[in-house]
Amino acid sequence: MDFHINNILNDLKKDNFQAYLLTQFTNVEYISGYRPTSFAFCIIKENPIIYASQMDMELANQNSSIEVKKYESYEVMIDELKKEGIKNLAIEPSLPFSSYVQFRDDFEIDSKTYVDKQRMIKTQDEIEKITKATEIAQKSFLQLDILNNNGSEKEVAFDLVRLMIENGAAKESFDTIVTSGPDSSLPHAIPQNKKLSQPVLIDWGAIYRGYCSDNTRTMVYTERQQEIWDIVAEAHDKAIKAIKPGIKCLEIDTVARDIIEEYGYGDKFIHSTGHSLGLDIHETPGFSLRDETVIEDGMVITVEPGIYLEGEFGVRLEDTVSISKKGNVIGDLPLDII
Amino acid sequence: MDFHINNILNDLKKDNFQAYLLTQFTNVEYISGYRPTSFAFCIIKENPIIYASQMDMELANQNSSIEVKKYESYEVMIDELKKEGIKNLAIEPSLPFSSYVQFRDDFEIDSKTYVDKQRMIKTQDEIEKITKATEIAQKSFLQLDILNNNGSEKEVAFDLVRLMIENGAAKESFDTIVTSGPDSSLPHAIPQNKKLSQPVLIDWGAIYRGYCSDNTRTMVYTERQQEIWDIVAEAHDKAIKAIKPGIKCLEIDTVARDIIEEYGYGDKFIHSTGHSLGLDIHETPGFSLRDETVIEDGMVITVEPGIYLEGEFGVRLEDTVSISKKGNVIGDLPLDII
Repeated sequence: MDFHINNILNDLKKDNFQAYLLTQFTNVEYISGYRPTSFAFCIIKENPIIYASQMDMELANQNSSIEVKKYESYEVMIDELKKEGIKNLAIEPSLPFSSYVQFRDDFEIDSKTYVDKQRMIKTQDEIEKITKATEIAQKSFLQLDILNNNGSEKEVAFDLVRLMIENGAAKESFDTIVTSGPDSSLPHAIPQNKKLSQPVLIDWGAIYRGYCSDNTRTMVYTERQQEIWDIVAEAHDKAIKAIKPGIKCLEIDTVARDIIEEYGYGDKFIHSTGHSLGLDIHETPGFSLRDETVIEDGMVITVEPGIYLEGEFGVRLEDTVSISKKGNVIGDLPLDII
Repeated sequence: MDFHINNILNDLKKDNFQAYLLTQFTNVEYISGYRPTSFAFCIIKENPIIYASQMDMELANQNSSIEVKKYESYEVMIDELKKEGIKNLAIEPSLPFSSYVQFRDDFEIDSKTYVDKQRMIKTQDEIEKITKATEIAQKSFLQLDILNNNGSEKEVAFDLVRLMIENGAAKESFDTIVTSGPDSSLPHAIPQNKKLSQPVLIDWGAIYRGYCSDNTRTMVYTERQQEIWDIVAEAHDKAIKAIKPGIKCLEIDTVARDIIEEYGYGDKFIHSTGHSLGLDIHETPGFSLRDETVIEDGMVITVEPGIYLEGEFGVRLEDTVSISKKGNVIGDLPLDII
């Protein structure tokens, strides 16, 4: 933790900022060990402090590695900062406008991604938690016995969550997607009260000790579905193979997109190729068209190309890659389930 | 839907704004019927429009009652607004700073709560959905047979969610809280892998057709626990009885807080007395110390006083009140379960 705070203090110094305000729950947790349940203002400065809500004080005192004070009001907080001589404030890009306006008259303000920058590079401990989350999720998927399951999409989704929890997950890492037939052309489909039709697309993940996993598999049954599946699988495999430290994230998106375009489905690949994950299911950087971030050792990023044919069906295949000298897929669930 | 848009256009006119930008998913859904799964910019103006993400286009076209365009970039969106002569823009207070900075050079900006204002007053249809969600949640709670349940907190929580889904819920309306013994002094406790101890506090809700329910019950077993329970129950009952249109929200908080203070536990009631709910589990207004909103027919607000004794236990009792001539509690689950 101190390591992260020191890095941020160095970043602040370089940019001539005196303090950095964090309110995103997972950022506060990453820095302090305490995950707010209501609201909190964590201020990184020479003497870092968290202003926690009254209802969170017991929890914050238990878990935070940095000093905790009860939040009273914006005025009190701002006064205390000013008394310390703080004149400018870095904020997270996600800070709501309503909080920003509370600070803008008293401080020079700009947004910075200092914590995101730290969170991009996972420690060995974080990679182990993501790996364990992935193993729980993949084991549960196999136990689900999807091919012999007679439930509705909603029941199958619920069963998968039950298995993940029985296998040690805290909970699902996002709303589990079990979709089938024409509905699978919606990338974020909601499981319905209807029996599975074909193809079946499942996008699921577990949380283990705060860390997320993310995988997608699509089970196809017709020649047409297989044709699309093969293209997506080629994009998936070649993108993963291309991952290495030193190149830009957008280059991986391009690898996947070029393959799908070559086959004539470029306009049916309607999202980016992947996103980082960790304490949050979506973190930066991502394998997307505009992400110029250079890939580094320690990043953990998904690869999830897809082709979505409205009125017909969709296919997506997703694995999570831990980046070391070369990209290592986390987990060992085959792409081809049937 | 048109009704809401017209109201907002009137509010805009009164405040001399030309357009209102919405990005909160439930606000976009409330106005258009389409709930984004990725991101969206919904702009209320003479000709309202939604710029949806490419991956949401199929869903948005299916569900939105207002025009949908594919989002290309901030530049394209801003150019189109400027071509229409739009010079100022109302935004939601929750808009992230990173979006705000995209617009601030081209438009005069201030935040407004026009949609929240509409959402405060529920239609008959919305109240029916909240009522149904509450009935599902309460029926499931009774089926859970908590007094004879031998599971861990985590298992009981999972069972309750299973029952809610079996009874017709889409899912839980927030992370179900099942906590017991000393852990119950944390208002937002996370269910643990341990057998239930005493007292047992359960805070749970269902989502039915997009609408949330919210209840809390605490099962107490010792004289000391009963003493605290009785105080919380008195605060709960008298606060509910005091609710009527025309008075301010903070007056209801005061009723509950005064009772708990009289018994000497004022500093142990560490949150506000209640919050509105609907498409979101937390909406405005709330029964809190600083909320001057005047209570009106059609509001739906929880009443949930609590006393939290660190190291000992906590007690909270929560019901949801539909405000008509007098406050009507939604659902019929007794406060006193054992």
